[in-house]
Amino acid sequence: MSTTSFTLHATDGRARTGVIQTPRGEIRTPAFMPVGTAATVKAMMPDQVRSTGADILLGNTYHLMLRPTAERIARLGGLHSFMNWDRPILTDSGGFQVMSLAELRKLTEDGVTFRSHIDGSKHMLSPERSMEIQKLLGSDIVMAFDECPALPADRDRLDTSMRLSMRWAARSREAFGDRPGHMLFGIQQGGLEPDLRAESAKALTDIGFDGYAVGGLAVGEGQEAMFACLDHAPQNLPVDKPRYLMGVGKPDDIVGAVKRGIDMMDCVLPTRSGRTGQAFTRHGVVNLKNIRHADDPRPLDEDCSCPACRNYSRAYLHHVYRSREMISGMLLSWHNLQYFQDIMDEMRHAIAEGRFEAWEAAFHAGRADGDIPRL
Amino acid sequence: MSTTSFTLHATDGRARTGVIQTPRGEIRTPAFMPVGTAATVKAMMPDQVRSTGADILLGNTYHLMLRPTAERIARLGGLHSFMNWDRPILTDSGGFQVMSLAELRKLTEDGVTFRSHIDGSKHMLSPERSMEIQKLLGSDIVMAFDECPALPADRDRLDTSMRLSMRWAARSREAFGDRPGHMLFGIQQGGLEPDLRAESAKALTDIGFDGYAVGGLAVGEGQEAMFACLDHAPQNLPVDKPRYLMGVGKPDDIVGAVKRGIDMMDCVLPTRSGRTGQAFTRHGVVNLKNIRHADDPRPLDEDCSCPACRNYSRAYLHHVYRSREMISGMLLSWHNLQYFQDIMDEMRHAIAEGRFEAWEAAFHAGRADGDIPRL
Ligand SMILES: [Zn+2]
Ligand SMILES: [Zn+2]
Repeated sequence: MSTTSFTLHATDGRARTGVIQTPRGEIRTPAFMPVGTAATVKAMMPDQVRSTGADILLGNTYHLMLRPTAERIARLGGLHSFMNWDRPILTDSGGFQVMSLAELRKLTEDGVTFRSHIDGSKHMLSPERSMEIQKLLGSDIVMAFDECPALPADRDRLDTSMRLSMRWAARSREAFGDRPGHMLFGIQQGGLEPDLRAESAKALTDIGFDGYAVGGLAVGEGQEAMFACLDHAPQNLPVDKPRYLMGVGKPDDIVGAVKRGIDMMDCVLPTRSGRTGQAFTRHGVVNLKNIRHADDPRPLDEDCSCPACRNYSRAYLHHVYRSREMISGMLLSWHNLQYFQDIMDEMRHAIAEGRFEAWEAAFHAGRADGDIPRL
Repeated sequence: MSTTSFTLHATDGRARTGVIQTPRGEIRTPAFMPVGTAATVKAMMPDQVRSTGADILLGNTYHLMLRPTAERIARLGGLHSFMNWDRPILTDSGGFQVMSLAELRKLTEDGVTFRSHIDGSKHMLSPERSMEIQKLLGSDIVMAFDECPALPADRDRLDTSMRLSMRWAARSREAFGDRPGHMLFGIQQGGLEPDLRAESAKALTDIGFDGYAVGGLAVGEGQEAMFACLDHAPQNLPVDKPRYLMGVGKPDDIVGAVKRGIDMMDCVLPTRSGRTGQAFTRHGVVNLKNIRHADDPRPLDEDCSCPACRNYSRAYLHHVYRSREMISGMLLSWHNLQYFQDIMDEMRHAIAEGRFEAWEAAFHAGRADGDIPRL
């Protein structure tokens, strides 16, 4: 199969479930994408990531263009082969991370010049260069190059930035060209202003993309404001294309986003938290560094199928965290990714069977219960 | 099966191959034991360690008695269950590491008092306490408690120390008691002095152990002196019991030791080197941090079956080392353990087939070739 498609199988309220077909395999939606910033999902082997149920990974254009460089990855056969992941990969455009990580940034109509946070070397990103890099990487889902202002921002700033991003979206579309088997997503901006969101959606739809991201959220506005925006912003986007909420989030953020019609998400939280002794479970967050677990023979989450829960006690997970052993980050990253994928799988089934509301209530009830009582 | 045994299948020169039977599985000799200091082989999952061909792990009494404590591990069901390794485990006595790591050590006839290098807490190790801890851990092969002087040391110091270790060996034997299914190994001392080695062997044999370690080597004397000692020291020990060389070593140390009649070894080198970008291969040591690998699409070692060599390029291994990603240590530890176990497996077959000398020549020739030429 050389083309791509998105098929919606069912909706339940605004929640949707379906599948994105790509030549590298299908992506079941709603989908959570683990983040493989520097060509590795931190502390995990690719086959382990796949075993949790991940259909697609996210790679970061900004990091990869600096090290090992997109040209080098292309010479080596592309990102999939380089990092030993043969399923779909989505790459971001680099726009967001250039603004949060790079030094001496200078923004013009043309693009952004900046210095690497790694070695101070000088680089440039523009819609055209971002498309080139993402093509060199061999990305299956390419993101348009945009500018994303931090929130809160005043309306003038949001308006100006959104219009720049829409001009860049048109240039991204032009530079991307015709690449069968690869998808290009546009990114809606406009902050928390409903009319700007609607205008941005109209501009993107006029250009025409294979999918649409809700950009500019999860940048400090808080869950209430984000959900308020998601109550309207996704509805401006074409119903027959996937909708991607970038950089989200905590389990309850994810559930709330799916409820509001989002199909794809990504976040570093499962692996980052895993490396700091923090586990997400059906009963809320568990801090394995807490001394209360030192003698606890019970599994972290008895309903979880991951190796951390099947093969080890909380006492062991506490011990290896305190001993700063690498297996601590390995096991908890695995558990967290498994939990995130389990939620996605449960939501896909609940939506397909028209019982999303009941599932969501049970999800919140389980978290409200809190962790099992200490021994 | 509730008891243990050692069966020699073949000898070739002084090199031996056989099997140690234990209730937890067999240990093919010569055997290399990966080190799981704090109840984990660093950067590895237990099933990955097993997949390399390891029949047995080593655990460190000193580290485990301090954290999480032997009593806690016993309450949790023993070290095997705690760390999810159901095959044999050998534990050292704690004697060597107390001398190299602990603070404010005080040595008397009774034993050693010291303060923890982790939190300064006060502890004691003696033959009786070491046997108690190793029993609490559930160790399959228990080491007698000994004192190991650093080399070079003068003859008086070696003589005095060896005699103390022999008195402690007798107390260890007495305290160990009768534990079917578990083995107790005595430790030969005497530094580089042949007559002290012989005297120590006689003392141990008179007490009677299930196996014998050649102790007090690999402590700074160099390979030549170590091999000179191994030319005679193992010959003092009973031919029908396994012989264990503690803390060895580099691949050529291991091969030279097997040639001289050693059956078991352990070393942190494969995992420690793996975490610093260093790989052992059939063609010598390869430093993945070297920029020469940045564009190299070839595998680290094309004759190796490990995931680092099957699934990744040298360029990738270089990239993740430079990016300080955890997968770097994970992949290189795996590769190094696989290489060490491959050597052991090849030696076992070569000895069984009476071609150890030819195998050894090929081993050294491969290393002399050096790494593949740069592209
Ligand atoms: Zn789990
Ligand atoms: Zn290998």
